[in-house]
Amino acid sequence: MTIKEIKGHIASPKGFIADATHAELKFQKLDLGVILSQVPAAVAGVFTTNKVAAAPVKLDQALVAGGVAQAVIVNSAIANAVTGDEGIRNAKTTQRLVAEKFDLNPNHVAVCSTGVIGKQLPMDKIALGISKLSAENSHPAGFAQAILTTDLVEKEVAYQVELGGETVTIAGVCKGSGMIHPNMATMLGFITTDAKIAQPLLQETLSEIIETTFNQITVDGDTSTNDTVLVLANGLAENQELLAGTADYQIFKTALTLVCQTLAKKIAADGEGATKLIEVTVAGAPDAVAARMIAKHIVGSSLVKTAIFGADPNWGRVISAIGQVSPFEVPDIELTIQGELVLLHATPVAFDQADLSEKLKEKVVVIEADLNQGEQSGTAWGCDLTYKYVEINALYHS
Amino acid sequence: MTIKEIKGHIASPKGFIADATHAELKFQKLDLGVILSQVPAAVAGVFTTNKVAAAPVKLDQALVAGGVAQAVIVNSAIANAVTGDEGIRNAKTTQRLVAEKFDLNPNHVAVCSTGVIGKQLPMDKIALGISKLSAENSHPAGFAQAILTTDLVEKEVAYQVELGGETVTIAGVCKGSGMIHPNMATMLGFITTDAKIAQPLLQETLSEIIETTFNQITVDGDTSTNDTVLVLANGLAENQELLAGTADYQIFKTALTLVCQTLAKKIAADGEGATKLIEVTVAGAPDAVAARMIAKHIVGSSLVKTAIFGADPNWGRVISAIGQVSPFEVPDIELTIQGELVLLHATPVAFDQADLSEKLKEKVVVIEADLNQGEQSGTAWGCDLTYKYVEINALYHS
Repeated sequence: MTIKEIKGHIASPKGFIADATHAELKFQKLDLGVILSQVPAAVAGVFTTNKVAAAPVKLDQALVAGGVAQAVIVNSAIANAVTGDEGIRNAKTTQRLVAEKFDLNPNHVAVCSTGVIGKQLPMDKIALGISKLSAENSHPAGFAQAILTTDLVEKEVAYQVELGGETVTIAGVCKGSGMIHPNMATMLGFITTDAKIAQPLLQETLSEIIETTFNQITVDGDTSTNDTVLVLANGLAENQELLAGTADYQIFKTALTLVCQTLAKKIAADGEGATKLIEVTVAGAPDAVAARMIAKHIVGSSLVKTAIFGADPNWGRVISAIGQVSPFEVPDIELTIQGELVLLHATPVAFDQADLSEKLKEKVVVIEADLNQGEQSGTAWGCDLTYKYVEINALYHS
Repeated sequence: MTIKEIKGHIASPKGFIADATHAELKFQKLDLGVILSQVPAAVAGVFTTNKVAAAPVKLDQALVAGGVAQAVIVNSAIANAVTGDEGIRNAKTTQRLVAEKFDLNPNHVAVCSTGVIGKQLPMDKIALGISKLSAENSHPAGFAQAILTTDLVEKEVAYQVELGGETVTIAGVCKGSGMIHPNMATMLGFITTDAKIAQPLLQETLSEIIETTFNQITVDGDTSTNDTVLVLANGLAENQELLAGTADYQIFKTALTLVCQTLAKKIAADGEGATKLIEVTVAGAPDAVAARMIAKHIVGSSLVKTAIFGADPNWGRVISAIGQVSPFEVPDIELTIQGELVLLHATPVAFDQADLSEKLKEKVVVIEADLNQGEQSGTAWGCDLTYKYVEINALYHS
């Protein structure tokens, strides 16, 4: 199986273009972006579980139920959450304006937002912004910038695979981290591919992949009102339609998993105030769901996050975090930090504190726990908790 | 019903004394304390739900099952958690040494610890410390100090009630500060009373009260390996034995609830790095358990905690936190911050930002959400998330 990472972007798959503009929603910054497919594409989506879902989330859920999308419009200034009926109307108007501009079915236009809660969209600015977007000059780097809020870096990735002699490209772009108007750390993820795959299978594949990728990251334990991941597959690679159970499907799924995992890790590494990416793997669990849950709890523990910030090999906080949420006893647990064994058979092992503390100053910190209770494992990603996180979220006023 | 707060301490109820000493476990600080009852007392307890429970927790669970205690010994330097069989042996030796010193049944001696995980108790120092403790000169203020770790202040409270013509005193002392998200939080709480009450009813009462008091505070979402609350009732007030369903029992229960709630709030207010106590009440819920769960989630949200630190009336973070965990829709939610209405019928209400920001600089911040979905309510307490929290937990090395 050859899966090749390429220097690509959201418009690398055949038939996709992306553009962005400054719609004056923010100060001198690209703040409105669009992804377009030449032809209607199968669309799959996963959304926030927050009961206070934003207006565009409701719209996109209906769109994904319809199974087809040809465009995604995104603003990164106003979340359009807790905005009542007016918010729904504004999201629908946005949809209609994009459809008119690019001659599309409005029901094929996905609308995404991130930004301040409880504020209505300034529709005159949105309309002007949409009028400035172009289907001619693809500007994917602009799109990657336009969706950012407090993110420090753009987050893009692209992979290519050969499926039945045809080259299929899968590309992704996302934002995470937090907001310029920090109400929560919203993540938006957009994935395009020219693969030919039926919508139900695409949705099934995404729903499965999400559990081990985007759902396994945490910055501050807060779930946004606007979280959205969309995958558009327009079939222009002209591969034979991917069918479940085939080798080609397996290759595609692996590549899509890599795209999601890479984007997820980029979000965690760029978490608000973060200085380090933390990767936690829990192995030896009776079931994978529990393994993932425990891993995510460890990486979300404020005490673990501050210890990593301080380069402190404080394994007591790790095992305490495990004990808090583990559904089963862990009498034979083994714990490794940056490759250094610190706990064996649930008993402390002597190690060089100063040496391990040095290793904890690296940009990526890996914690591995083997529960020795089964065969399943799970991984989660997060970041350290720093002065900067408190500053970003305390000093910026809503 | 007259329930009177008194200037008292853990040795105020008849027949109790307390003492403390410097056992050289920490640098120049009282670090070992004891509570003694003249006579064997009924004992009730609740303990951490952490699967990695410390050795003393296991010992005390057996003691509470036996129903009788006459002493509690506490050290605040070493948690005696993740210490294997040697940890259990050391906890038992501690029990035996206290029993020998004060001529008690060793099975009536509760042992509590808080501090570093994964380190064995230095039994020579523990033995020397115990030998210095006295049953003659009651020194309850020393005890209140001796159990502290990163706490900045002692936490004591005492109430008196009249039951059938007899004065009954209930007093409590606790430590908290970090790893506070009790199911139970490391929090240790000790309550003494001279009330006469059978052990099963005392346990039933404590188990019920704990749900709305100690289990409703959070500092950092982390549940410790050592959390313990013990109540000793020695019967020396010579009131008629309290029976469920009587008016006297109701008075006693209310007073015990006040003791637990007051101690819980003191822990939240003295959370690591805290500058403010946050009290969140969720009303209008279909059931009380959900109301308490939502209240606790709000008060535990890093984004809410940092906003309060920054005196930012960022109600979007509050409603987002509700939406994350609410088991039901909240289309008619009402939200009040420091008495100021900010959201009505799930729609933003205009308010004076600067004025509310000023009110958020007070030492106690009150957030009230009315879900308008039922008749039940619940309250939770926590504190803001500050630079100091990060400093305490990043710069202190294990």
